[in-house]
Amino acid sequence: MNIQEKNIFVDGAAYVNGEFMPVAEASVPVTDLGFIRSDATYDVVHVWNGRFFRLKDHVDRFLDSCERLRFNLPLSRDQLIDMLHGMVARTGFDKAYVNFTATRGRLAKGSRNPLDCENRVYGFTIPFSWIAPFEEQDAGIAMIVASSERTAIETMDPTIKNFQWGDFTRGMIEASDAGAKVAVHLNHEGNVTEGAGFNAFMLKDDVLWTSETGVLMGITRRTVLEIAERMGVEVKVTKVSENILRSADEIFISSTAGGVIPVRSLDGAPVGGASNARVALDIRDAYWKLHDDSEYSTPVRHDIVQA
Amino acid sequence: MNIQEKNIFVDGAAYVNGEFMPVAEASVPVTDLGFIRSDATYDVVHVWNGRFFRLKDHVDRFLDSCERLRFNLPLSRDQLIDMLHGMVARTGFDKAYVNFTATRGRLAKGSRNPLDCENRVYGFTIPFSWIAPFEEQDAGIAMIVASSERTAIETMDPTIKNFQWGDFTRGMIEASDAGAKVAVHLNHEGNVTEGAGFNAFMLKDDVLWTSETGVLMGITRRTVLEIAERMGVEVKVTKVSENILRSADEIFISSTAGGVIPVRSLDGAPVGGASNARVALDIRDAYWKLHDDSEYSTPVRHDIVQA
Repeated sequence: MNIQEKNIFVDGAAYVNGEFMPVAEASVPVTDLGFIRSDATYDVVHVWNGRFFRLKDHVDRFLDSCERLRFNLPLSRDQLIDMLHGMVARTGFDKAYVNFTATRGRLAKGSRNPLDCENRVYGFTIPFSWIAPFEEQDAGIAMIVASSERTAIETMDPTIKNFQWGDFTRGMIEASDAGAKVAVHLNHEGNVTEGAGFNAFMLKDDVLWTSETGVLMGITRRTVLEIAERMGVEVKVTKVSENILRSADEIFISSTAGGVIPVRSLDGAPVGGASNARVALDIRDAYWKLHDDSEYSTPVRHDIVQA
Repeated sequence: MNIQEKNIFVDGAAYVNGEFMPVAEASVPVTDLGFIRSDATYDVVHVWNGRFFRLKDHVDRFLDSCERLRFNLPLSRDQLIDMLHGMVARTGFDKAYVNFTATRGRLAKGSRNPLDCENRVYGFTIPFSWIAPFEEQDAGIAMIVASSERTAIETMDPTIKNFQWGDFTRGMIEASDAGAKVAVHLNHEGNVTEGAGFNAFMLKDDVLWTSETGVLMGITRRTVLEIAERMGVEVKVTKVSENILRSADEIFISSTAGGVIPVRSLDGAPVGGASNARVALDIRDAYWKLHDDSEYSTPVRHDIVQA
């Protein structure tokens, strides 16, 4: 890569349907149904110290979502993985947030049938960003319970990772108004679900709870469950009532954008007692250790740009 | 307007945050939250025989939605209206579909707060397109009841016109698979709501039913209600059970993209009896007559392009 090429990717690289470009130049046609009908699915994988974390799992989830939306991608699985390496390699980022998106594409002239579209692939990578940086994580972040209900499974299956963030956006604005960092959403039955880009965990009487359905099957969530099992923590993946949330000894969130982050307060009230965040921080530390493990991580193929 | 200028807008014109361009060139940055979080609202007005239909009502609804999303638009109301005239005038279209959209915009660097964004305005106009053209309307179209539930009010208020069409898209694909034209959605309680871009009306025992809540307050819907009142048809704007839908004498839909369209069959079974579509077609004819009425319509200001 020559100097000039490197410079144009300094803020990030993108991929739009076959071409790489600086992130600021990447765009979606206004008539792509991925925009005007939010008919799209996406995934986010991160790069940490030059290695993708659980790349295969993110790609598996993404391709599964595409299939369920009846998308036919213009890229094979291998080409998709090459594209992800290609974006990160162009930026030279050591720690990166890597989005990849498939959209329905544009309607054929005169057609209203989504199945008549040529599906499209987009991607972009920017420097790794945090819901909360390490220094804030030790103290924990402030959470509120959002007033908007998480989308019902019967409306939009949240296991297909999607951009329909209307409920989350309302929650984020409410959190901002309340001086909190994140909002967690209940569903129509009043059970705990998830928030904007994260799953939620509650520790109560040494049992770790997280929601079984109505949430994204987060890759960080899965990693937390694996770590908890190894640590011998009892886990319940089931319906989680608002009462469990409100009486938890610990609350934490899991997200590709930040890993495992303890929650200090809920709706302004402190979470738990003296033990606050003990288990969360143990899991967090184990989570970051896995990033060097070649079972979990894949080095960015920097040579792909010369190819 | 010179010939060359006219040619580039032959397929449609667009507006992106201050500039007019051919529709094929108009795009949204991949990092606009209007795309990656579907954090946007839009409206669609149509032009018929050189006149916008109920332009003021569409603009009112759009600005109200923007306010409820806490958007601060970069255009005043008058500038927005000028933009709509400007797009259509550039194309010379006599009959047009005119979309205008506001998005949250891009996040400020390092911020996760939607309120920190510079909101953006987009628009595009393309030739008028029909859910079903006049010739199909007389016979009526085929409708199915979608398996996906319409988004709950508690999740995403459908009176803010939005792109979160996941439920609708599933319905459209199911309709396509069943050889039908449209899908109508029930809500969680099993009551009738709306479909992809349309409101639904049911006539039963000479009473016209339509849903009161959980649906867009459609401008065509409002026009239908006004016409029905003038025609002396008894109207019930209330909860509408699935039973009313399944036992209706007539069903029709209302939409900016096609006006008033009778439904011939529901899940393959014929709708109503000998009287099928009598009232619907009377309302349809009255609806199109209003398009010449200067109380309801506004001529496109073609001189705005020279200005």
